[in-house]
Amino acid sequence: MGKVFTQASVSLDGYISGPGQSGFDKLFAWCTAGTVATPTADPDRLTYRTSEATARYLRELQETLGACVVGRNMFDLTAGWDGRHPSGVPVFVVSHRPPPSDWAATTPFTFVSDGVENAIARAREVAGHRDVGVGPGGTVADALRAGLLDELRMDVVPVVLGGGTPMLAGLDATAPIGFEQAEVIEGIGVTHMIYRRTLQRPV
Amino acid sequence: MGKVFTQASVSLDGYISGPGQSGFDKLFAWCTAGTVATPTADPDRLTYRTSEATARYLRELQETLGACVVGRNMFDLTAGWDGRHPSGVPVFVVSHRPPPSDWAATTPFTFVSDGVENAIARAREVAGHRDVGVGPGGTVADALRAGLLDELRMDVVPVVLGGGTPMLAGLDATAPIGFEQAEVIEGIGVTHMIYRRTLQRPV
Repeated sequence: MGKVFTQASVSLDGYISGPGQSGFDKLFAWCTAGTVATPTADPDRLTYRTSEATARYLRELQETLGACVVGRNMFDLTAGWDGRHPSGVPVFVVSHRPPPSDWAATTPFTFVSDGVENAIARAREVAGHRDVGVGPGGTVADALRAGLLDELRMDVVPVVLGGGTPMLAGLDATAPIGFEQAEVIEGIGVTHMIYRRTLQRPV
Repeated sequence: MGKVFTQASVSLDGYISGPGQSGFDKLFAWCTAGTVATPTADPDRLTYRTSEATARYLRELQETLGACVVGRNMFDLTAGWDGRHPSGVPVFVVSHRPPPSDWAATTPFTFVSDGVENAIARAREVAGHRDVGVGPGGTVADALRAGLLDELRMDVVPVVLGGGTPMLAGLDATAPIGFEQAEVIEGIGVTHMIYRRTLQRPV
């Protein structure tokens, strides 16, 4: 069975987007700050250009990814990735609402109306021995709260955004939640930090 | 002239204390997680025991520190460090109120009533070529907002606290604020991340 993880570009003050959906130019500058190309499943729209270390990190993620779970906010914000998720793997959207009536997908999207736990269970089935990526967004806290997140991958960007959408919010009743010592990969304009859950909980 | 910096133990969700002043056992566990001793100016109360890498990081901080600027909240929370700040250097307390009447200090404490900018200016005078440490607490945001903070030192601890006091808050009108690529020092149960301000602002 693969692991369940989340990955997000995050500011020094913990935001995955700045005030009023701003700051994405800063948060994602590292994706094209280098020279080593890593194509996504939609290479015309996004091909990473990074350091070799970051490229290795991204390739490993791509090679082990089996399915994604995203929230409806993220789906709506990206207009459903125009029907083509950059990961190229099956995507499970946690939502009480059906997809927009005019929406057509070229990658497999499944709408799950009974919560993040069931979405993760279905994604794990599809992913098999591969991994399941969750979020970013509110689904991450839901998954952490349910004890279903094995790994946090924070792509820490050296900027303070001052506000916006936190990577981790609404966890007061569940915290503290402990992780192992970080595995650190230094990129260009980014520090990749991989945190695996400790076995005992709470710490 | 030395630099002006802040240093804080911070959770993965950006808090320097958990809900209701909790979480300090988690946030400061790294201070005694190793075997290499680094005494503070008050070694009976606090002698760090860390990895050699962390010990080097701490010794460098101690050797270059010339003065500290703290907020009144921090002063009150720690009962004025019982009059003996662990740094052993002169401390400037930003406060509109005088010290408690029964309070006696063995290290030089100065109460500054006209704001963090003046407190930093006075601390720099005393520090000379040495560095000035600011915060942690609300004084950090004040100093960042005033463009007076050269360096953020985040001792990132692998725990999610879910709430509490953010390391960086109230910066929406000033952000985004850019920093150089992190210098990373890996410890035991902590990752020290040093962020220096970029020259141009805003990024």
